Amino acid sequence: MTRAFNFSAGPATLPESVLRQAQAEMLDWNGVGASIVEISHRSQDFIAVAAEAEADLRQLVGIPDDYAVLFLSGGATTHQALLALNFAAPGQVVDYVVTGHWGKTAIKQAKPYCTVNIAADGEAGGFHDIPPRDSWKLTPGAAYVHITANETIHGVEFRDTPDVGEVPLFADFSSSIASEPLDVSKYGVIYAGAQKNLGPVGVAVVIIRKDLFERSGQPRADIFDYRSHAARDSMLNTPPTWNWYLAGLVFKWMLAEGGVGEFARRNALKSSLVYDAIDASGGFYRNEVVPAVRSRMNIPFFLPDETLTSRFVAESKAAGLLALKGHKAVGGIRASLYNALPVEGAQALVDFMRDFQQRNG
Amino acid sequence: MTRAFNFSAGPATLPESVLRQAQAEMLDWNGVGASIVEISHRSQDFIAVAAEAEADLRQLVGIPDDYAVLFLSGGATTHQALLALNFAAPGQVVDYVVTGHWGKTAIKQAKPYCTVNIAADGEAGGFHDIPPRDSWKLTPGAAYVHITANETIHGVEFRDTPDVGEVPLFADFSSSIASEPLDVSKYGVIYAGAQKNLGPVGVAVVIIRKDLFERSGQPRADIFDYRSHAARDSMLNTPPTWNWYLAGLVFKWMLAEGGVGEFARRNALKSSLVYDAIDASGGFYRNEVVPAVRSRMNIPFFLPDETLTSRFVAESKAAGLLALKGHKAVGGIRASLYNALPVEGAQALVDFMRDFQQRNG
Repeated sequence: MTRAFNFSAGPATLPESVLRQAQAEMLDWNGVGASIVEISHRSQDFIAVAAEAEADLRQLVGIPDDYAVLFLSGGATTHQALLALNFAAPGQVVDYVVTGHWGKTAIKQAKPYCTVNIAADGEAGGFHDIPPRDSWKLTPGAAYVHITANETIHGVEFRDTPDVGEVPLFADFSSSIASEPLDVSKYGVIYAGAQKNLGPVGVAVVIIRKDLFERSGQPRADIFDYRSHAARDSMLNTPPTWNWYLAGLVFKWMLAEGGVGEFARRNALKSSLVYDAIDASGGFYRNEVVPAVRSRMNIPFFLPDETLTSRFVAESKAAGLLALKGHKAVGGIRASLYNALPVEGAQALVDFMRDFQQRNG
Repeated sequence: MTRAFNFSAGPATLPESVLRQAQAEMLDWNGVGASIVEISHRSQDFIAVAAEAEADLRQLVGIPDDYAVLFLSGGATTHQALLALNFAAPGQVVDYVVTGHWGKTAIKQAKPYCTVNIAADGEAGGFHDIPPRDSWKLTPGAAYVHITANETIHGVEFRDTPDVGEVPLFADFSSSIASEPLDVSKYGVIYAGAQKNLGPVGVAVVIIRKDLFERSGQPRADIFDYRSHAARDSMLNTPPTWNWYLAGLVFKWMLAEGGVGEFARRNALKSSLVYDAIDASGGFYRNEVVPAVRSRMNIPFFLPDETLTSRFVAESKAAGLLALKGHKAVGGIRASLYNALPVEGAQALVDFMRDFQQRNG
């Protein structure tokens, strides 16, 4: 098979030009006589790659100088635990706004260390909407307020940054970072596993407002201390070098393509194509999320029955449209439309959807 | 430059055939229409790759069925903290035998969670020897005894497994796992970052005797709980899939080359070549480790002065012998001779050493 359009929710599709470069450099990177996966993270060669990736990410996302940027191993879940360990005192209240599966996971990681207050929870409504800001029960003096900017499974996305006052806002941006312009200064911490919009699996990005390092947090191993990682430029221990390098190639590709403004345009176009196809299907396809908070990145939708759903998954795969099966927590179909998924991919999907409906509707 | 002989201590050299396979599959793995770095860890395709890697590692190292094998993100340092969190009660005594830099790092990670007893410490002797077993001050009822099987920086290696009685023995095998036959049943836990003898950076292997899961350990996030990882076959969250895949290719290469017996033979030969060159140099080259505990994997050695050391580093690099500069903690030269470094590489090094001495001795 040649390369297909890949709608995987993560690990997810990467730009073909980035994969081709990684392929070309696999045995001998930059003429050094070895692959980049074989050289020391403490070599000048790798340190330059790492620094360039950070500089490019700062430019791409617009990260102010008073924020540290860490490239660390582990996915977002690890950081959900480390946020509590680093920035909340033992047992201190932390406020969580739950708008889907990943918000619940975030709470699970924080609970051993803090007093979790669920300030708002969309579960009673099936996570089809985001509870309105004026209904949130925030705690004065909480260590932080945590939100999930985009819920990968439930397809619900904050379309504006909520105002939570003086308490720092922490946000899981795993599935929407760099997909549109973002005002980083409104957040205390932004974190993201790279494997959706930023590059390969195996590395996470953590963006931390530096004044938060003054918090003592709670007793923890040095390897769990963000300050130690920041002081050593994310090389406290051996970082996932190849993954970091590949993320850096993706950053350069995004900048060359026009930056987050251009990706915001493409992502709006791609998601409109798919939502319009759903909404114009007369109920054959069904997305249950309130339009104002529909995700531009992950679109879960349903067919009339299980037989049609299975047929849709099988036939779309045969047609070169990969990984459209929905997450088991919600079922149905899910199309993920990250930065590296071209507009042509979304168009091919809606063409397939219309054809499938004609044959089965 | 074509591919050089790479003596990096880690990330380290990989088999060229493995890199060539990864290169060939970079844009389309196994005909699925995507790279393996772009497909879901929960796909049947990746689950098969993951299971095969575990089965191959079990065969290669000889891991009994009553041991779990985890493939996790983070390097060995993360696991030095997790060992304490998972297997020691809060404040319980743990015994550490320190034979170099990494033993000290291990203690640093455990200290916030346990009462660390340094049962033996080679630092007073410059880490040139391993304190004899009958001098160790072990604690009856300790949660575990921790050793570093091979000290990557100081070049000191346990050549036998110490008998520590009923208390489980935990060992950092990052730089020597799969380099010779190993009786896993003598250990409670064996852990290793993959980036030296097992494959690429970005994934660690943790081998745990299953009865240890009955220990409650201490309060911790779910993502820090080895039981949760074991229950989900190391897919509690998104694992570093590409790194896991590449490690699996290295396991298959090691099995095809003849397994750990064959690598024990090659590693003995390679290290003998280098130690013999040092010992036959009339003091021009100097290794300070007691011969009985000299590492087969990492050979630190010294030249008469700094000028010669710098010249050695520069000229060896120009001659296609990479990454021979010693770690800054000890200085001098270091040659790492992991499984993927061919015998021809060690021969090329000793040829260079003799030539360099003739020109500079």
